[in-house]
Amino acid sequence: MSGDSGAGRLPATIEDPLDAVMRSAVAASEEVRGTTSPNPPVGCVILDTEGQVAGTGATQPPGGPHAEVVALRAAGTRAAGGTAVVTLEPCVHTGRTGACTDALRQAGVARVVYAVADPSPRAGGGAAVLREAGLEVRGGMLAEEVARGPLRAWLHAVHTGRPHVTWKYAATLDGRSAAADGTSQWISSELSRAEAHRLRERMDAIIVGTGTVVTDNPHLTARGADGELTLRRPLRVVVGDRNIPADSRVLDPVAETLLLPGDSPESVLAALGDRGVVDVLLEGGPSLAGAFLAAGCIDRVLAYIAPSLLGSGPAALGDAGVASISQAWRLRIEETTMSGADVRISAVPAD
Amino acid sequence: MSGDSGAGRLPATIEDPLDAVMRSAVAASEEVRGTTSPNPPVGCVILDTEGQVAGTGATQPPGGPHAEVVALRAAGTRAAGGTAVVTLEPCVHTGRTGACTDALRQAGVARVVYAVADPSPRAGGGAAVLREAGLEVRGGMLAEEVARGPLRAWLHAVHTGRPHVTWKYAATLDGRSAAADGTSQWISSELSRAEAHRLRERMDAIIVGTGTVVTDNPHLTARGADGELTLRRPLRVVVGDRNIPADSRVLDPVAETLLLPGDSPESVLAALGDRGVVDVLLEGGPSLAGAFLAAGCIDRVLAYIAPSLLGSGPAALGDAGVASISQAWRLRIEETTMSGADVRISAVPAD
Ligand SMILES: NC(=O)c1ccc[n+]([C@@H]2O[C@H](COP(=O)([O-])OP(=O)(O)OC[C@H]3O[C@@H](n4cnc5c(N)ncnc54)[C@H](OP(=O)(O)O)[C@@H]3O)[C@@H](O)[C@H]2O)c1
Ligand SMILES: NC(=O)c1ccc[n+]([C@@H]2O[C@H](COP(=O)([O-])OP(=O)(O)OC[C@H]3O[C@@H](n4cnc5c(N)ncnc54)[C@H](OP(=O)(O)O)[C@@H]3O)[C@@H](O)[C@H]2O)c1
Repeated sequence: MSGDSGAGRLPATIEDPLDAVMRSAVAASEEVRGTTSPNPPVGCVILDTEGQVAGTGATQPPGGPHAEVVALRAAGTRAAGGTAVVTLEPCVHTGRTGACTDALRQAGVARVVYAVADPSPRAGGGAAVLREAGLEVRGGMLAEEVARGPLRAWLHAVHTGRPHVTWKYAATLDGRSAAADGTSQWISSELSRAEAHRLRERMDAIIVGTGTVVTDNPHLTARGADGELTLRRPLRVVVGDRNIPADSRVLDPVAETLLLPGDSPESVLAALGDRGVVDVLLEGGPSLAGAFLAAGCIDRVLAYIAPSLLGSGPAALGDAGVASISQAWRLRIEETTMSGADVRISAVPAD
Repeated sequence: MSGDSGAGRLPATIEDPLDAVMRSAVAASEEVRGTTSPNPPVGCVILDTEGQVAGTGATQPPGGPHAEVVALRAAGTRAAGGTAVVTLEPCVHTGRTGACTDALRQAGVARVVYAVADPSPRAGGGAAVLREAGLEVRGGMLAEEVARGPLRAWLHAVHTGRPHVTWKYAATLDGRSAAADGTSQWISSELSRAEAHRLRERMDAIIVGTGTVVTDNPHLTARGADGELTLRRPLRVVVGDRNIPADSRVLDPVAETLLLPGDSPESVLAALGDRGVVDVLLEGGPSLAGAFLAAGCIDRVLAYIAPSLLGSGPAALGDAGVASISQAWRLRIEETTMSGADVRISAVPAD
């Protein structure tokens, strides 16, 4: 209650007013996640000379226009002299679509602000090209947020040459994925199950082993709150040598399904990469997750820990090649949040 | 940046100035946890007529004065006309020490503010006695905070007739407490291990099964950052029928150790209750923890989840009588925090 709420003091952090614009661009990019691969899901906002939003856009499916072009079309003549705020450095590559650097110049944009530099050899270097053309260019705004968020999988694929893999699983506090008799209904909360569907929707592919198909007969589709299939239909992938039952739900026609032999995780990912898959959700089970982990093919772990204890029953993770504690797979926790009654832990391999 | 930071607006919550005083009383009580059983660890602050702190006190070991008496002695004549702020309703019971209600009246205290009502049949009713004597009495201040905090175990023991049991364990994200070859060094972070020592220090007793003694040969003492034994020496309890090696560290003379036969958890707790134990830390291993859980004898779970994955090795929790998912032990998560690199989850049985 001391009188220190008066004027004249600065807020602890001064946010760049463009941060909010960049966040709109991020939001636009999130909308198209799962539809752009092998291209990155990018968002762009064009401000006019007054700083007012003139157009917003996001990457269209492969062959369609990039985010900058969509936003420039929406902005029309208001782009002239204005600012482009975009989550990825504009490309210089003329592929199926024209180079975005050309489109920005032609529209007369005066200033370009981007988050993440484009590391790809063919399309990178846009900032230099634009500067040479006389535009004011500033990179790195909210770069970490964007690199961890919507562009994470694509950046990973550019750097490593293979898709990004998120292993998602649900388990009890004591690490069990089912009771001793195999029952596992509602281990995780309703909210976590709904989140799982929203996660699937934004992925290029969902992988399980034949064991999970035979035991659980999952559909591997994304459904809304009403139980209706969403419009996005990620590729369903079943890995293993066994034949799965012909009436498996995963074989129904509502989405594409790929059956791959039980090869090494590396070759599974190579086969998916060849099909343009960038962002992969590994949904188990324990054997396949263990094999992926042992092969160094898990880039993020998303654990939904239910507040219950079983004391027996199958473990969420099977053999991952660890014999002694010094060989444990060490992670770094990125974020811990509540998901309904569950604890949701996001972790990445420790450096 | 709109101009709404001016004067004339009320803060969102108006905190009672006595809240801060009650928090001092809570802090004083935390200092004596682990030394007062079977009496409750209580804290008391005496304010003089000006509202200045005249004395602070906390419950002394059994046979010694209660918190109110310690604080009144410190306040001396300044207590007259003042206020007593105390975490538990003052007792009316004249046991080894005089009734606190008498002490407060004799000191001329005008007002008593307490957090939690005393539910014990012998000592309860102090508020009514004080009101009848003309004092102003107000109960319930920060009651929930105190009931969940320093008085939790004692309240549990009063209500159930048995000690409160906290099961503490460390495990990997996939629920393993060691690797396949039994190695388990540093599963949890340095900070978590330091926290474990501070936790032990405030307990009346620490329980393990003979299996843990035979395998790990733990000392079950509390040590400071320098590795030195702390002054508090909770009772060490080993449960099981096996003989443990005569050179087990738990048998050294630095603290008392009780060897109990492998009876039911209920009878183990009854034996401890008979010795005045109120607050128990169950440190495993998996067999004993499973038995306690199955018997409904775990009142709080404190899990230190390390950010690593093993995929094989012993589970943190053994058989707890669960065959099917409907029999799972359901918990409610009270709090999730980071403890160094680990996630620390505190959970209680769901109602
Ligand atoms: N907790 C969760 O979130 C979660 C998620 C999914 C499943 N589950 C549970 O997991 C259980 C099924 O376990 P599971 O381990 O049999 O399922 P799985 O991992 O889905 O399938 C195992 C199968 O994957 C194939 N596979 C392909 N490449 C492999 C490799 N490199 N290493 C090992 N296996 C490879 C093998 O099939 P072939 O033998 O055909 O070659 C193997 O038998 C079910 O009870 C299910 O409920 C739990
Ligand atoms: N993750 C952690 O935080 C943690 C903590 C402690 C230990 N551990 C690990 O646990 C392992 C030892 O496992 P453990 O299960 O043998 O240890 P434990 O639970 O400490 O000991 C088991 C023994 O407890 C006795 N016992 C007494 N009453 C019992 C009852 N009602 N039900 C079952 N047992 C009862 C039995 O001894 P008798 O056979 O003598 O009758 C039984 O063999 C070690 O490797 C250790 O590292 C892990």
